[in-house]
Amino acid sequence: MNVPGLDHLLTLLRFPSVSTDSRHDGDTRACAEWLRAHLTGLGLQAELHETPGHPILVAKNAHRPGRRTVLLYGHYDVQPAEPLNEWRTPAFEPTIQEGRIFCRGATDNKGQLMAHVQGLSETLAAQAELPVNLTILFEGEEEIGSPNLKPFLEAHRDLLACDVVAISDTGMVAEGVGTFTYGLRGIACLEAIVRGPTIDLHSGIFGGAVANPCTMVGRLAASLHDAEGRVLIPGFYEAVKPLAEWERKAWAELGDGADETLELTGAPQLFGEPGYTERERRWARPTAEVNGIGGGYQGEGSKTVIGKEAFLKLSFRLVPDQDPDQILDLAAAYLEKQLPPAVRLEIRKGHTGSAYLMDPHSDLGRAAQRALEKTFGGQVALIREGGSIPIVQAFKEALGADTLLLGLALPDCQAHAPNENFPIANFIAGARLNQVLLEELR
Amino acid sequence: MNVPGLDHLLTLLRFPSVSTDSRHDGDTRACAEWLRAHLTGLGLQAELHETPGHPILVAKNAHRPGRRTVLLYGHYDVQPAEPLNEWRTPAFEPTIQEGRIFCRGATDNKGQLMAHVQGLSETLAAQAELPVNLTILFEGEEEIGSPNLKPFLEAHRDLLACDVVAISDTGMVAEGVGTFTYGLRGIACLEAIVRGPTIDLHSGIFGGAVANPCTMVGRLAASLHDAEGRVLIPGFYEAVKPLAEWERKAWAELGDGADETLELTGAPQLFGEPGYTERERRWARPTAEVNGIGGGYQGEGSKTVIGKEAFLKLSFRLVPDQDPDQILDLAAAYLEKQLPPAVRLEIRKGHTGSAYLMDPHSDLGRAAQRALEKTFGGQVALIREGGSIPIVQAFKEALGADTLLLGLALPDCQAHAPNENFPIANFIAGARLNQVLLEELR
Repeated sequence: MNVPGLDHLLTLLRFPSVSTDSRHDGDTRACAEWLRAHLTGLGLQAELHETPGHPILVAKNAHRPGRRTVLLYGHYDVQPAEPLNEWRTPAFEPTIQEGRIFCRGATDNKGQLMAHVQGLSETLAAQAELPVNLTILFEGEEEIGSPNLKPFLEAHRDLLACDVVAISDTGMVAEGVGTFTYGLRGIACLEAIVRGPTIDLHSGIFGGAVANPCTMVGRLAASLHDAEGRVLIPGFYEAVKPLAEWERKAWAELGDGADETLELTGAPQLFGEPGYTERERRWARPTAEVNGIGGGYQGEGSKTVIGKEAFLKLSFRLVPDQDPDQILDLAAAYLEKQLPPAVRLEIRKGHTGSAYLMDPHSDLGRAAQRALEKTFGGQVALIREGGSIPIVQAFKEALGADTLLLGLALPDCQAHAPNENFPIANFIAGARLNQVLLEELR
Repeated sequence: MNVPGLDHLLTLLRFPSVSTDSRHDGDTRACAEWLRAHLTGLGLQAELHETPGHPILVAKNAHRPGRRTVLLYGHYDVQPAEPLNEWRTPAFEPTIQEGRIFCRGATDNKGQLMAHVQGLSETLAAQAELPVNLTILFEGEEEIGSPNLKPFLEAHRDLLACDVVAISDTGMVAEGVGTFTYGLRGIACLEAIVRGPTIDLHSGIFGGAVANPCTMVGRLAASLHDAEGRVLIPGFYEAVKPLAEWERKAWAELGDGADETLELTGAPQLFGEPGYTERERRWARPTAEVNGIGGGYQGEGSKTVIGKEAFLKLSFRLVPDQDPDQILDLAAAYLEKQLPPAVRLEIRKGHTGSAYLMDPHSDLGRAAQRALEKTFGGQVALIREGGSIPIVQAFKEALGADTLLLGLALPDCQAHAPNENFPIANFIAGARLNQVLLEELR
């Protein structure tokens, strides 16, 4: 198959750059070194910056005054490949089947990252010059929460100063449908620990006379929603603005997402806040989810114990104008009220991140949509996504720049799962998208 | 210290007869062999019966027609000693401090078992003959649920035929207060497994659109009780008879048990079904307890996942006239109703055992109380206990015999815990109790 740049992508995929696994630290560094050399070969000034973790790669063309500065972000690290026995092809040997490349990292994010790079390469080959001032920022710690990226942004505001950021690390609503993501949900995490007796008790001897922490975390979990799925924490929805009519309409025109979500999740039925479509619930409504619950006996069979403590791990997905810290305060106060004084509650507040929303009808938003139109043809899907990408908020805060999210992943590309894959067609389209995008942002 | 029989008890305690740990199988057998030899030395016909597990020791005097037959039950196996670093003296080297013997098994059950044996020894030394037909049944698997005892009872009904069973394996309400336990709660166990999606989901991407199994097990746990602790399962209390006035009065005269329970459990406050005292709740009211709850992320910090399934392990403590199997049916039907069709519920029914209650004012009950009075002086405490001793029900079913529970353990004897101990005074009293009891049962 003669696809320009495909060989380079396959080379990149062969590095098992698993950022969370220190046994792969050498592979991860080698991956960064290879990318630096590759970008240098394209004529860019490329440099690895050391961090306490994996290096950050910054590359630039010659910046000239008067041109817009565009920052392209991507990550060269990948998730672990486990469970290995569920892979149909070797996890780190890219294998092409039915037009898709199967390999860990194929879609998240090496395939999308190399689509950027291949686009640049083709532009530079054709006209020896890019239409904008370009800054590339590739990190190696996205899959472990980018612990060193925000300090790096803050320490290098001048080096990284830009007018806009572009990222290809989100999804397309369907094959061949150009998709512009203009909003992401925020997040706020909280752990509740309920403590009762100071030792595990025999539930025969003491059962009936003391409060049971396992029952009480159940009460906390149950208190979060009404029977239909509305969050019951007072004030939770207060700052939430109604969805705009245009976006409800635009999303409805994407067709019914229910079947796809049923198929992807395997859930017996959908379930959620009344009055909203499945997409609206996932993309634009705030949620409270129990990510983990535990206490008492965890083994097989039964053990008649009253455990001394139990926990509940919660995360809230937030929408614009909800203040994550305020939401955690409201939640903590509400949870406190659910319990009798016969147990004690400890609340541990976790990480937070605000929701992100940009105006898709702004100049930059329209430029991104034109690039998608010219690449994919047809109507561009304007969507939000339900997940949180904290770096997008970090770019906004540290660099003052909005982010254009131009994802190339399909719903069945299996990011983070066995048999991750990336369609070669999306690689080709992504390379073209990158060329057109820089033209449109000129 | 010259306490008759104490040396024999110390010898018995030095066998680390941990029935659950196969590395101690040799010690456990040696312990049984020593006991057999010791009983033979007293002039009893003693024999070890092999089982698929640890051997059962049966010993008898010469039975003569026309006398009452009394079966003494005890167990020579012990709980594991771990955590070893919490012991102040070696776990299997009996150490006497402040009038108590510290050793694993000191109170549960070797100290109480040897009190029986020492009583027999003294009677036989004094009058060469016991006042009753005696059958001793000592097993080595009580701490692992007596898996081979019930089949043994059923296979040896003639060998073990008796008029009454006596056991010293329960507690005394306080030091020096003779205590007769005439009731035990029953048990019924159940596990509920809630399944939603077929894979763990990203709670950002899918949160809001599917039912979360962790939330749903919380809902199940919370549905079991009202805010004050009454069980809400329809029909749960239907067969429950009110407590007799005499027993409420008798228990109230034992003094307020709240302070002791607060001290033993370390709970911030007591909590339970309104309208009943702390003792009534533990001894004579049925309960529903969550013994274990779990689902989703169990590690440190946060992981934004919607787990595909979650579980709830329940046990019910039951009182006389509640049918354990019917209670499980009622519970299963009730739990099923708490969940939306967006999740699936699997119910796994576990082991059950009926409550035990004998009439303390019957001939046998009064004989036991006279023995306690003559041993300890003062008023005998008539109590029930909250735990379940399935073998008591097994004796009733296989042999048709009631059981006299004449416990010698104090609340701070630390059965099953580090620093288990047994007061030498209780050993001496127990030996005397055994002599008087056989006289009273003559």
